[in-house]
Amino acid sequence: MESVKNRRTIRKYKSQEIPEDLLNELLETAFRAPTMGNMQLYSVVVTRDAERKAKLAPLHFNQPMVTSAPVVLTFCADFNRFSKWCEQRKAVPGYDNFLSFMNAASDALLVTQNFCTLAEEKGLGTCYLGTTIYNPGQIIELLELPKLVVPVATITVGYPDENPQQTDRLPLKGIVHQEVYHDYAATDIDELFGAKESLPENKEFVRINQTETLAQIFTDIRYKKADNEAMSGNLLDVLKKQGFC
Amino acid sequence: MESVKNRRTIRKYKSQEIPEDLLNELLETAFRAPTMGNMQLYSVVVTRDAERKAKLAPLHFNQPMVTSAPVVLTFCADFNRFSKWCEQRKAVPGYDNFLSFMNAASDALLVTQNFCTLAEEKGLGTCYLGTTIYNPGQIIELLELPKLVVPVATITVGYPDENPQQTDRLPLKGIVHQEVYHDYAATDIDELFGAKESLPENKEFVRINQTETLAQIFTDIRYKKADNEAMSGNLLDVLKKQGFC
Repeated sequence: MESVKNRRTIRKYKSQEIPEDLLNELLETAFRAPTMGNMQLYSVVVTRDAERKAKLAPLHFNQPMVTSAPVVLTFCADFNRFSKWCEQRKAVPGYDNFLSFMNAASDALLVTQNFCTLAEEKGLGTCYLGTTIYNPGQIIELLELPKLVVPVATITVGYPDENPQQTDRLPLKGIVHQEVYHDYAATDIDELFGAKESLPENKEFVRINQTETLAQIFTDIRYKKADNEAMSGNLLDVLKKQGFC
Repeated sequence: MESVKNRRTIRKYKSQEIPEDLLNELLETAFRAPTMGNMQLYSVVVTRDAERKAKLAPLHFNQPMVTSAPVVLTFCADFNRFSKWCEQRKAVPGYDNFLSFMNAASDALLVTQNFCTLAEEKGLGTCYLGTTIYNPGQIIELLELPKLVVPVATITVGYPDENPQQTDRLPLKGIVHQEVYHDYAATDIDELFGAKESLPENKEFVRINQTETLAQIFTDIRYKKADNEAMSGNLLDVLKKQGFC
């Protein structure tokens, strides 16, 4: 509980390698996460090779963790292995559809979080790269993922070489709804986001980016509508190409 | 680590309630999971009311945990709260697309797994209901979810009233790939699934279901192509209706 409570994203790592035994133990334990029908609809690709990391980095917008972390893990939604088993056992698999992708992606994401919790409990630091689903096509090519396999999350892992401040979170009552969803009135939004907007680092962030509000940094700089729409099309194309719709 | 290693799905619960303080502490800690751009793209709806559980149960194919667990949690991908904040801060949100749904669903699933780990560490038992994305439209109606909110996972929680056997998992080497994905040869499949197929409970399962192979139980009885395709269409319609594509 304490290690989760104190959790921070770690982006700087010591050069120290992660022993293979430890990594395998963490992965094996992570695979105890719940999985639909015990089908284990995921695969994990381990990247330790410096050359491959260098090729992976631009696919994650050159975030430096990809090359500086001793280990990069790509968690994939995988219906390939299960479908191959079916075919080999006189069973006709029917998992080339969007629902099956979501089932496999869910399985993979539960395992991803389980891995992070376990790794952090053992003193490792992790960083979750949301960029995985921005460039899935090129990641698929580099990691040689077959049909019915799509990367959904990437984690960089290593021994921490920094001790950053913990980031803020919204108040609990802004996220948890009793019985039914209570939609947010203007006053609720002001109350929930007030503390975040008042943080000195966020005020500085607004100043540096020369926007009028903190929200504009998200909409106009970091996560723009046009980019999201282009990447949505790209992601759907990849799902189609990988046989999921 | 030990509680994750020994993890079992718990489907039978004592009548004992979960104190509100404990539930809130678990949720608040779970929200320390990584989240894209610290946007916290999720909401959780807590169901304790017996009448609402009774209405929720058929949407989860009448799995008995929905009515017997003291608490049912529906984890939702949520871009509503964040978009409302943007609109209120002279920023134009661009999150009505498929990529944004996947971002929010990922955030929500990481939190879901984090919650389960924490709850189990405190002696609670959980069951993950994959049925959430089978009937999302009706769940949306019952829980009054607005646009840009879609349920992605449901967890039933309570104090365990059973101690089931731990289910099997595939060998580690069948899931973890070094550097690139090594696709499975027929011999690999035989080796990986051999132990599962030899389990007495699975042999009995095949006998009872009168299939020739264990795989046929999945393809012909539990997770059928026609059902998956119908539910895929349904899920995509719901994403559209909720404004995500």
